[in-house]
Amino acid sequence: MDLDGCIKALSHLDLDTKPVSVKAKSRDFFWYSPVLKARLDHVTADFVVSPTSEAEVIEVLKTCYAHDVPVTARGTGTGNYGQAMPLAGGCVLNLANMNKVKEIRPGSVVVEPGAVLRDLDAACKGDSGQELRMFSSTWATATIGGFVAGGSGGVGGIRWGSLRDPGNIIRLRVVTMEAEPQIQEITGEDLTRVAHAYGTNGIITELEMPLTAAYDWVGMFVTFPDFGEALRYAYDLASQDGILLKLISVFEPPVAHDYFLRVKPHVTPDQTVLAIMVAPQSMAGFETFTARHAGAEVIYRSDQTQWTKAPGHVFEYGWNHTTLRAMKIDPSITYLQTSYGTEDPVAKVLEARAAFSPECLQHIEVTRSGGRVNMAGLTLVKFTTEERLDAIVAEHEAMGIPNFNPHRYTLEEGGRQATDARQLEFKRQVDPKGLLNPGKMISWDDPDWGYETMYAWPGLRKAAE
Amino acid sequence: MDLDGCIKALSHLDLDTKPVSVKAKSRDFFWYSPVLKARLDHVTADFVVSPTSEAEVIEVLKTCYAHDVPVTARGTGTGNYGQAMPLAGGCVLNLANMNKVKEIRPGSVVVEPGAVLRDLDAACKGDSGQELRMFSSTWATATIGGFVAGGSGGVGGIRWGSLRDPGNIIRLRVVTMEAEPQIQEITGEDLTRVAHAYGTNGIITELEMPLTAAYDWVGMFVTFPDFGEALRYAYDLASQDGILLKLISVFEPPVAHDYFLRVKPHVTPDQTVLAIMVAPQSMAGFETFTARHAGAEVIYRSDQTQWTKAPGHVFEYGWNHTTLRAMKIDPSITYLQTSYGTEDPVAKVLEARAAFSPECLQHIEVTRSGGRVNMAGLTLVKFTTEERLDAIVAEHEAMGIPNFNPHRYTLEEGGRQATDARQLEFKRQVDPKGLLNPGKMISWDDPDWGYETMYAWPGLRKAAE
Repeated sequence: MDLDGCIKALSHLDLDTKPVSVKAKSRDFFWYSPVLKARLDHVTADFVVSPTSEAEVIEVLKTCYAHDVPVTARGTGTGNYGQAMPLAGGCVLNLANMNKVKEIRPGSVVVEPGAVLRDLDAACKGDSGQELRMFSSTWATATIGGFVAGGSGGVGGIRWGSLRDPGNIIRLRVVTMEAEPQIQEITGEDLTRVAHAYGTNGIITELEMPLTAAYDWVGMFVTFPDFGEALRYAYDLASQDGILLKLISVFEPPVAHDYFLRVKPHVTPDQTVLAIMVAPQSMAGFETFTARHAGAEVIYRSDQTQWTKAPGHVFEYGWNHTTLRAMKIDPSITYLQTSYGTEDPVAKVLEARAAFSPECLQHIEVTRSGGRVNMAGLTLVKFTTEERLDAIVAEHEAMGIPNFNPHRYTLEEGGRQATDARQLEFKRQVDPKGLLNPGKMISWDDPDWGYETMYAWPGLRKAAE
Repeated sequence: MDLDGCIKALSHLDLDTKPVSVKAKSRDFFWYSPVLKARLDHVTADFVVSPTSEAEVIEVLKTCYAHDVPVTARGTGTGNYGQAMPLAGGCVLNLANMNKVKEIRPGSVVVEPGAVLRDLDAACKGDSGQELRMFSSTWATATIGGFVAGGSGGVGGIRWGSLRDPGNIIRLRVVTMEAEPQIQEITGEDLTRVAHAYGTNGIITELEMPLTAAYDWVGMFVTFPDFGEALRYAYDLASQDGILLKLISVFEPPVAHDYFLRVKPHVTPDQTVLAIMVAPQSMAGFETFTARHAGAEVIYRSDQTQWTKAPGHVFEYGWNHTTLRAMKIDPSITYLQTSYGTEDPVAKVLEARAAFSPECLQHIEVTRSGGRVNMAGLTLVKFTTEERLDAIVAEHEAMGIPNFNPHRYTLEEGGRQATDARQLEFKRQVDPKGLLNPGKMISWDDPDWGYETMYAWPGLRKAAE
């Protein structure tokens, strides 16, 4: 790669080569994983460029292509799986300044990738009482482009399923990594080639996303004396077609007591806690339903309860914020991402708890999949060794509990360890030199890889001595 | 009953005693059933009173109570099951003039019972881009009070389930039938005592209903060459969490060809037809999903297609408008209301078709129940005799397909033939003389009734010679 030539050619843009700030912009939340922490901590790009328009994106890609410089796209770096880590150095394409909300319609929005989820929701709510269908728990800082390029779903998934479900992304506009970068409008089945591809298959410059009605959601914490009872309540509540929900998270004890500092004064170590978001007009229905469950106690609701130390948004206790809060108290904690599915997931969660507690503590997110209530696990794990972590993953798989392993940095290993032929074929067209976020797609680098061990990309830049 | 005294005491109100207009206001759509037609055609009240305020409702009830005059509440009389037929004569309480929309909030509306569904939706859409979660296919003429007092669900049920699900009615304000009528605010579990009680348990004077975002729904007709394939498509489409739907109706051939005059030129007698409503922002997802089904052909979409004779709202081909259209072409047609449930309903529908077609033709409404996709049947039946109709119902029950028999005028027979103890207990409190819509609650009249035959209320006024 001709780094100096590339930097020089792009020097009229907002471009940064200062090692400290470049390194800061070369990191995401890969450090949730001790495995990735050990391997990627040194990773840094050579420069960061921050375009403010699609025209500048095209210029950056064309120039990097000409100089054989790898390009790793970045929002605000709140993702996991090391997905925004520039393994081979080169250019970090920081899209945070491309953040315009371009058009808000009834039911949809057209937006640039760098818009922060919170700002986007505020714009949609202010315009017409609308908001995104779903967002990550990093809503306050994450970008819509990063969410779509690296996320799979999140808060709101209890109503709308996951990002990969038809209808949850309407259109993506992407720029290809070619001698003459092309603009492609991606819709329909083709969306899976670009969404959740970590920026390996083109750079997203515009998104069209569905919206839904915004409400002043009531955030609650609910306790149960029994974990299984709490799980069944969560499943049944999510099955209530007339109650509009945005979140149900279930935390095995003592997660809430030990790791949620502002909740701790209000719960005991043996209580199961749920974080729940309900639309205001559904609170009457919620109360009716909840009163049928003798064990349920609502200890906090955002529209009524005053705690001396306010807990903030309850969704900032769910999804990967649970892991974050636990790690802050106990740095040895990491996590798994599992699926308990839609066929009696409560029984599967209880089985996993029986097998792994307290080394693993269950943290369940209730979502929808294929029209049915689904349970996803963001299980907390007390990390000891990589071997033990791998064994825990393998034991889950053996129990019929699939993993989306967050201790791997490739798309395939973070997915279901299979080549996505359409994604690979698309990469051949849009990134013929393989310069977009290199090292993240095994099938591109090593089509015969067998997945027996963790993939270590040979191109990974070595740490400086 | 002291009819003359009652009429005199209420004569300062909007009161009508003219036989022709009183008879017109004493009829609902009971005649969908040849069984009810044979028994209730002569039924008429003695007078109609049309209050414009809750105070007038109270005055009417107090006066009728004092004079032992039965009171049957009425919206616009578009219900079935004879639910608004004044079996013992007396007073028809016409609530159509109590139609004020009192307050529209984010997610809910407070409204008087006589508001027509279409007008209510227009008010909510105009105010803040909102609309009712669900409505009957008689949206253009039916009232919200009648829908709640007599309905179980309808268009929108594919997203929100049925009216009885917690959250789909927030609050009902009712006036009791006592010497001094009381006002009760009904919420929570108590709602089931008043909703779908045909006005036997108090007169609704105000409703608080949840709203959802209003969209310019795209109405479509889709054809399939194969009925089973169409059913599976309907089930799978309804299972798409990311595609916002309001309606999926499936019509066994040749229903659409034979009974939908404006659709007929565009379909063949052997095509299965579906009526579907999709939110505009979900059309891209809908198209993606539908393209996976080789047999599917979209022959009409309201936002694009120009037929010489426009078909109007597609929901006016679904629910009980299907039956209405069929009866207009073939007066011998009547219908069943069945449930195919959530456990492999496609197989159950196919089983029923194999057993009964062409005497019965399948008309399926896809809804939600307990968080899962549900199929309801509004099966078209070529009526021959009452004995054969009863046998068809019994054969369905024997196949594990429950009926909500629309050829009966009591709550129990139109339901699951069981006493609702809470509803009965509530009636003892709020209608001690049993004057509200008499003859509709078997458990009030004959607690030991065994349901072997059709209940014939002894108090039913006889036809004039």
